[in-house]
Amino acid sequence: MKERIEMCLSGSGGQGLILAGIILAEAAGIYDGKEAVQTQSYGPEARGGASRSEVVISNGAIDYPKVIKSDILLALTQTACDKYVKNLNKDGILVADSTLVTEVPNISNKIYLFPIAETAQKKFGTKLVTNIISLGIIVGLTEVVSQEAIQKAVCSRVPVKAKEVNEKALLLGFDIAKDLKVKNKKSGNKIN
Amino acid sequence: MKERIEMCLSGSGGQGLILAGIILAEAAGIYDGKEAVQTQSYGPEARGGASRSEVVISNGAIDYPKVIKSDILLALTQTACDKYVKNLNKDGILVADSTLVTEVPNISNKIYLFPIAETAQKKFGTKLVTNIISLGIIVGLTEVVSQEAIQKAVCSRVPVKAKEVNEKALLLGFDIAKDLKVKNKKSGNKIN
Repeated sequence: MKERIEMCLSGSGGQGLILAGIILAEAAGIYDGKEAVQTQSYGPEARGGASRSEVVISNGAIDYPKVIKSDILLALTQTACDKYVKNLNKDGILVADSTLVTEVPNISNKIYLFPIAETAQKKFGTKLVTNIISLGIIVGLTEVVSQEAIQKAVCSRVPVKAKEVNEKALLLGFDIAKDLKVKNKKSGNKIN
Repeated sequence: MKERIEMCLSGSGGQGLILAGIILAEAAGIYDGKEAVQTQSYGPEARGGASRSEVVISNGAIDYPKVIKSDILLALTQTACDKYVKNLNKDGILVADSTLVTEVPNISNKIYLFPIAETAQKKFGTKLVTNIISLGIIVGLTEVVSQEAIQKAVCSRVPVKAKEVNEKALLLGFDIAKDLKVKNKKSGNKIN
């Protein structure tokens, strides 16, 4: 894996992306023994509707804690996708909600599409776990942190009464990632 | 006010300092029309027990989002105080919990001591609002963000059922700040 991995989790307020970023950073920095920094920025941009949470993970000390070019971009709204895809590394991957991001950007990167929020609603009766399913997909696809570490971080950060549903959501994300990998391979890295 | 204000909210895990940082940054960046970045870092340091949440607020674009020298340091444990006071600006202020930080550092800065966690427990029957009382004290003392902005940010970030108690905790923090200002003036900026 690269020495320094930069992630951008983007969508709109209320989609739980700050918490997702905190969980990813804790998984890396507390349970996987790496260094991690999690950041959110507010300004004219944040007031425009698209919000993002950034995570930088490194094997060594992190000098500059902001995302320069994303290696992994999660997009849970069209607005966020349009905005942050410009900052995707040429080797970076895009994970997008296929129901919420209908105009998929015309890029040569690996793209993984899945109806994440819709699946959260169908399987768990709430869209609140969209962020945790997304984490499962990202970790399943990229192994940016270990599955064990992300499980521990999820359990330590979500409220006790919501622990079980969030653990299931995470495991579902791992499964989705497996399917997406196969699908992606078959279609020669082009997703329909 | 300075163009760029740097804050370090320090203590131990579970004291709600990440949430406090997010609320401060949202108050500045969403409700006060400034730019704000909120960061937490995980690494060897985080595994040592002292945790911190950093907030940088500026009237202009924020180029470097991490705290270089704190203008405001909140310390809710002795370990955190000992660690992060070294990074306090010479004109910076220290706000510390007087029950949890018993060895007050020998510095020439303005120091404001108050039994924050104990007061949370006594007045609200829970230490969970220690972070929000702390925010009230910081904003009351420094006006780093407007009182209106921090009230809006608290209400938007805490769970609906906990809104009332958190609003009260914030207002209590404002009142404590008023008293601390008077006390600090009387004692010639030296707190007993």
